[in-house]
Amino acid sequence: MSKLRFTITMTLDGYIAGPNQSIENPLGEGGEQMHDWVVKLKFFREMHGDEGGGETGTNDDVLREAFENIGATIMGRNMFGGGPGPWDASWKGWWGDNPPYHTAVFVLTHHAREPLEMQGGTTFFFVTDGIESALRQAKEAAGDKDIMLGGGASVAQQYLAAGLIDEMELHVVPLLLGGGERLLDNLGSDVTLEPVRSVEGPGVTHLKYRVKQSGSGTDGQRAESPAKA
Amino acid sequence: MSKLRFTITMTLDGYIAGPNQSIENPLGEGGEQMHDWVVKLKFFREMHGDEGGGETGTNDDVLREAFENIGATIMGRNMFGGGPGPWDASWKGWWGDNPPYHTAVFVLTHHAREPLEMQGGTTFFFVTDGIESALRQAKEAAGDKDIMLGGGASVAQQYLAAGLIDEMELHVVPLLLGGGERLLDNLGSDVTLEPVRSVEGPGVTHLKYRVKQSGSGTDGQRAESPAKA
Repeated sequence: MSKLRFTITMTLDGYIAGPNQSIENPLGEGGEQMHDWVVKLKFFREMHGDEGGGETGTNDDVLREAFENIGATIMGRNMFGGGPGPWDASWKGWWGDNPPYHTAVFVLTHHAREPLEMQGGTTFFFVTDGIESALRQAKEAAGDKDIMLGGGASVAQQYLAAGLIDEMELHVVPLLLGGGERLLDNLGSDVTLEPVRSVEGPGVTHLKYRVKQSGSGTDGQRAESPAKA
Repeated sequence: MSKLRFTITMTLDGYIAGPNQSIENPLGEGGEQMHDWVVKLKFFREMHGDEGGGETGTNDDVLREAFENIGATIMGRNMFGGGPGPWDASWKGWWGDNPPYHTAVFVLTHHAREPLEMQGGTTFFFVTDGIESALRQAKEAAGDKDIMLGGGASVAQQYLAAGLIDEMELHVVPLLLGGGERLLDNLGSDVTLEPVRSVEGPGVTHLKYRVKQSGSGTDGQRAESPAKA
């Protein structure tokens, strides 16, 4: 069975982006340093087409594993960027001509757009009919492989509330941002988490959970609207 | 040098108590289950005067260590209970005649009250002149030993903002409460954390940090007022 796996870096105070996100500062104020642990890793460099060097060890192993057996990706409009509102066709995401996904990527949006084929096996598809449709399409694209949910917070909250995420791995970094986009908000207490493992790496602790749906709100409607911009 | 050590259980969404705290429900709705990991431990039972049985292992070791070498305790009025407002002298805390602290305990409050001597070495002192005074008195009482900060959130925020906490250990449990008292709020991004270690126990991950003060707001005034009730 193909699984939906969500993996993201979160500060100890629960943020996945700082305040005042902008084109110049897509992760918000102070947000960039959340990813200090990841940008120096060997696997991160490989994903971005740089074959030379990079750090190996626990963090590299965890990141490599997070991308293993992934056959499709889902993300929100904010994570793809270029919004909100109707598309400017010149916007092709934050990642240049060869994005690090190397799979079909389904972008949740209110605004239709033709698929966008990039180098290295990444094609962006723009999905306007909701999270379940995006998941269905991603499953078709992924075949036997798993699907990665990239973020951001509101799309993750929609999928969590709908009970559609199978596994969540949070890379918890020892930072306080004090504001911005908080991951585990708007969820009430209906999401049940079962610990899979904790792994300590330099400067980050990796917490992995199986996700279950324990209460009401299983249709995900509560959190449906705000994320698609 | 005597250290101020803060240790507390926190949900993955950052809460140390659920919504609607009351006398009947001091940890708020859903809050009790946060401590499922702790109440069954051998050391917890010993602290509460029950010598028989209890779980040993990683969690028991971590809890035991958290209470090792502690010579005094500080807590907020809410954690002691019986408030807000002037004291009802019949209120002697949540813990019965033999509280689990077995040290001098300094309770931060706006309302003066005579010291309250309990069984087992616990004496509650009521401090009305602020967090620095409480810390000074606790250091005198502790001698060479360390001081434990018990909580709750607003007192912890005051001490964190003032740069007075040396070590913070969060016992992160795989629960979402969706509301209540959030620990790491009102702090901005001025608190710098240096990871000491992560330890995985059954049903809980123990994250320990050294705390440093990196920016402005070192006088702790910003968070001073709301915690003393």
